[in-house]
Amino acid sequence: MSTPDLQASCPIPITEYPRVLMAHGGGGRLMHQLLERIFITAFGNPILLLRHDSAQLTVPPGRLALTTDSYVVRPLFFPGGDIGSLAVHGTVNDLAMSGARPLYLTSAFILEEGLPMETLWRIVCSMSAAARLCGAQIITGDTKVVDKGKGDGLFINTTGLGVIETSLVIAPESVRPGDAILVNGDLGRHGMAIMALREGLEFESRIESDSAPVHQSVLALLAEGVAVHCLRDLTRGGLTSALNEIAQTSHFSLDLEEACVPVRPDVRAACEILGLDPMLVACEGRFTAFVPEAQVRQAISLLRDQAPEADIRQIGRVTSERSGRVYLRSTLGGRRILDMPGGEQLPRIC
Amino acid sequence: MSTPDLQASCPIPITEYPRVLMAHGGGGRLMHQLLERIFITAFGNPILLLRHDSAQLTVPPGRLALTTDSYVVRPLFFPGGDIGSLAVHGTVNDLAMSGARPLYLTSAFILEEGLPMETLWRIVCSMSAAARLCGAQIITGDTKVVDKGKGDGLFINTTGLGVIETSLVIAPESVRPGDAILVNGDLGRHGMAIMALREGLEFESRIESDSAPVHQSVLALLAEGVAVHCLRDLTRGGLTSALNEIAQTSHFSLDLEEACVPVRPDVRAACEILGLDPMLVACEGRFTAFVPEAQVRQAISLLRDQAPEADIRQIGRVTSERSGRVYLRSTLGGRRILDMPGGEQLPRIC
Repeated sequence: MSTPDLQASCPIPITEYPRVLMAHGGGGRLMHQLLERIFITAFGNPILLLRHDSAQLTVPPGRLALTTDSYVVRPLFFPGGDIGSLAVHGTVNDLAMSGARPLYLTSAFILEEGLPMETLWRIVCSMSAAARLCGAQIITGDTKVVDKGKGDGLFINTTGLGVIETSLVIAPESVRPGDAILVNGDLGRHGMAIMALREGLEFESRIESDSAPVHQSVLALLAEGVAVHCLRDLTRGGLTSALNEIAQTSHFSLDLEEACVPVRPDVRAACEILGLDPMLVACEGRFTAFVPEAQVRQAISLLRDQAPEADIRQIGRVTSERSGRVYLRSTLGGRRILDMPGGEQLPRIC
Repeated sequence: MSTPDLQASCPIPITEYPRVLMAHGGGGRLMHQLLERIFITAFGNPILLLRHDSAQLTVPPGRLALTTDSYVVRPLFFPGGDIGSLAVHGTVNDLAMSGARPLYLTSAFILEEGLPMETLWRIVCSMSAAARLCGAQIITGDTKVVDKGKGDGLFINTTGLGVIETSLVIAPESVRPGDAILVNGDLGRHGMAIMALREGLEFESRIESDSAPVHQSVLALLAEGVAVHCLRDLTRGGLTSALNEIAQTSHFSLDLEEACVPVRPDVRAACEILGLDPMLVACEGRFTAFVPEAQVRQAISLLRDQAPEADIRQIGRVTSERSGRVYLRSTLGGRRILDMPGGEQLPRIC
């Protein structure tokens, strides 16, 4: 739906309640109206409709994955997504990193007094659409309202419950020398989409966030018997943080080929202008997969089936050296340590 | 531990990092230090120690309950508790309202830049102690930092997963005419503890929050065969909101005896000064239970075994009238409708 359509469809008349009031979090009639008309209308499913203090559910036998994330991205809307779709993709992707299929999500909103009701409705609709595309149901939630000046529009927490569809132990401990290190697409678009917007940068083409669910790609690898050793999504701290964590825990060294790391020219240009390293910039639809060398071709082909447009690559390999470090080989043949970043480069990108 | 002890024990030297920085949420070394030294130190358990993007777990067969709540209470510390213990009790109690035993919790923090590191450590320690007392493990989490002026110290989301220890359908739909309506103690202490603090009211005795886990009381009723028809915790909107929700969904009328509703004299006095109705004030360790008339004595006796000090009472009954309303019989014999409150009476008490 376009923005005017969404405005017209907002189930709380914006002429009557144009903005969120403290009373919308107070436990009385206004809060019930908000829950019924906004959240239950958008998310409606049989479990949620029971309106219990907690959702009741059954799960298939086997191991489960549980993950939680709060989303504080600013601005709330950005090219390629918004805080609502991001809050679904981020949590679904954390489940996927355990080899899990997302089943259920919870959603908890912290609203700032004065938030336009239409903004809330747009975000809730976006969240609902994203969850549906991931095959996950939003089955319970919570809403709090904080005084104007004590929040920032809205923050969302999503917690995800999924069922693990493999008996493999997908973890840094399973990484082995010789493993190929893959990425499922070009890096840094999410972070740079946000930063370009905040800094008012204009490029020939607009950079769109890579925010997307990746569970189908992961589940395809597992279903076809790829012995996935480790997975990590490339969020805060980007590829560099993710690989350093894996190197430190596995104790092996990781060797990357700089020329193989896919970064689009517009992202690289934006990074140069802002003095950022694309290998540190957060993505929200990218992950690294460690797979046995013998299965590299099969793995890349399966990932391409799931995302034909994506720049899927092998970017390096695990060596038998036990330094727990990440090395980057430049195109000129140099080899330098790619260290864990110190602090934050890009605040509030997720 | 006392406050000076806690300060001394803070695993991040407060001389070095006296306050939370934006970089503590940036995905780099500082964030990893925060996670390792504060959260993993306090919450440490085998699942959390695996440090995966999502926690991996197995659950006993049967129905599960899943619930989520964000906590934005202000101030962060209050007589009888703090935001950390509250974030455990509130979520454990939501699980209990489905007849579930709490197994696992997630914890997600939104920190405001500049929050004293020692405050964070105190709250995380309180949360850890509360979870341990409830027999629940905090198995995964998330930390975000927002700019100064875009939050309010800290907000916590906890999501709880529990196993339902009954085959009963505990829900408003199961309420029957003749059911006794019980409460597990005196009302309004949590809300009035917060309000007295905010308003600077001094009483002869300090009002302490009733914040406490109630799952053992609920599980005792179920284990001894009490056919619990409905449970609801008395949080935002208090007893009045909880009973109105049940009346509306069950379509039956509920008759309360005003003289039987337990409110302590100091709470009643504080409510009078502030012009509040104790039946609308939030509790964080109180619930209402609907049980068959024939099991009232057994139920009260079981609840007393769990909480010998508490003022456990039958406060009313379900009538066969199908108005979906709540009525209050006064000591003088009058009968008036107890309506759902309109908006908020007490902002940010949970």
